[in-house]
Amino acid sequence: MSKYLPKAVQNLIEELEKLPGVGPKSAARMAYFFLRAPQDQSKRMSEVFEKLHEGTMLCDKCFNVAESNPCAICADGKREPRVICVVEEPLDVIAFEKSGGFEGLYFVLGGVISPAEGVGPDELRIEDLVKRVKMEIEESKGLIEVVLATNPSMEGEATAVYITERLGEAIADLESKVKVTRLARGLPTGADLEYADSLTLRRALEGRTKF
Amino acid sequence: MSKYLPKAVQNLIEELEKLPGVGPKSAARMAYFFLRAPQDQSKRMSEVFEKLHEGTMLCDKCFNVAESNPCAICADGKREPRVICVVEEPLDVIAFEKSGGFEGLYFVLGGVISPAEGVGPDELRIEDLVKRVKMEIEESKGLIEVVLATNPSMEGEATAVYITERLGEAIADLESKVKVTRLARGLPTGADLEYADSLTLRRALEGRTKF
Repeated sequence: MSKYLPKAVQNLIEELEKLPGVGPKSAARMAYFFLRAPQDQSKRMSEVFEKLHEGTMLCDKCFNVAESNPCAICADGKREPRVICVVEEPLDVIAFEKSGGFEGLYFVLGGVISPAEGVGPDELRIEDLVKRVKMEIEESKGLIEVVLATNPSMEGEATAVYITERLGEAIADLESKVKVTRLARGLPTGADLEYADSLTLRRALEGRTKF
Repeated sequence: MSKYLPKAVQNLIEELEKLPGVGPKSAARMAYFFLRAPQDQSKRMSEVFEKLHEGTMLCDKCFNVAESNPCAICADGKREPRVICVVEEPLDVIAFEKSGGFEGLYFVLGGVISPAEGVGPDELRIEDLVKRVKMEIEESKGLIEVVLATNPSMEGEATAVYITERLGEAIADLESKVKVTRLARGLPTGADLEYADSLTLRRALEGRTKF
């Protein structure tokens, strides 16, 4: 950093650099953007960061970030508690909600198993998920469904496999009580066959449906 | 935005989206990054934004963002006041200072003439620059140099041309008092000839120097 950079700007750049996907150059550009913008834009930024944690909490049931506990989704009596969609991150819940195609409840794992990043099963909420599934089995007295909606990446697949095994260990006669499913794999809408990778094409063929 | 997104998170995402180069997706990713990070990271963010404008001011002489007025550069008696480097933005000053190759003073225009973005000459500090140049001529009583260091873009070139014309209008017998220069054009260090665009190559040839 230059000795001619005001300390206040330097501090801001240092904090902005910690943002995901922001390097030193974009951090500097962002800082000067705020210097040029009306002062109340920085004030608003200051406020939203200050109120971020005050205004949010974790839902004890699904571990999503929410305004109340239980969250609005878990508390919604019209949703189907027998279908639990297991996702990696809170943003995945938002994606499903935007799609409008899911009527069940969620469970946020808090990541995926990733030995490269030092994340083992104990860093995730897998035991909380086992508890949640057991509770739903008792309450519903019928078959429940667990949709393993981790990402279709290597880590996501491994995490899905691990969860299935762990549920099998923890719950006797799992298959009679829980239907474990995974999201369909295939071509995304608007895709171009020519550019699809071979694994996606193979999965699209394997999963082909009657027209 | 989903109705299930906590208001505090939604507010943060909305503010983050205003950052240059940040779209709705990266804004959401950043917001959840802060939710997962320790709470004092958001507190620090809140603080640096709050203190940004308190800790900075504009230098009346060069219009750079600084901690004092006049700024540390303008107040530095060892620098050469007869060479004025005219730049678009405060970040350009930092870039020159890092390069360590400039001993003169600066003048920050506050942008470039860009009809596409509705920025005319009146939105820039061109009249302040004319005043500054007149003042330096009077004080130095010798030849002064104005380095037009706007970017080598179409807007930067047009702004440099405009400034030269404006100085010519405002200052009688300009050439005897002010040497107006422009940064050298050519190949950047480490460049690959094969990939250089033809304008850059042409300029590099035109400006070739004795080896």
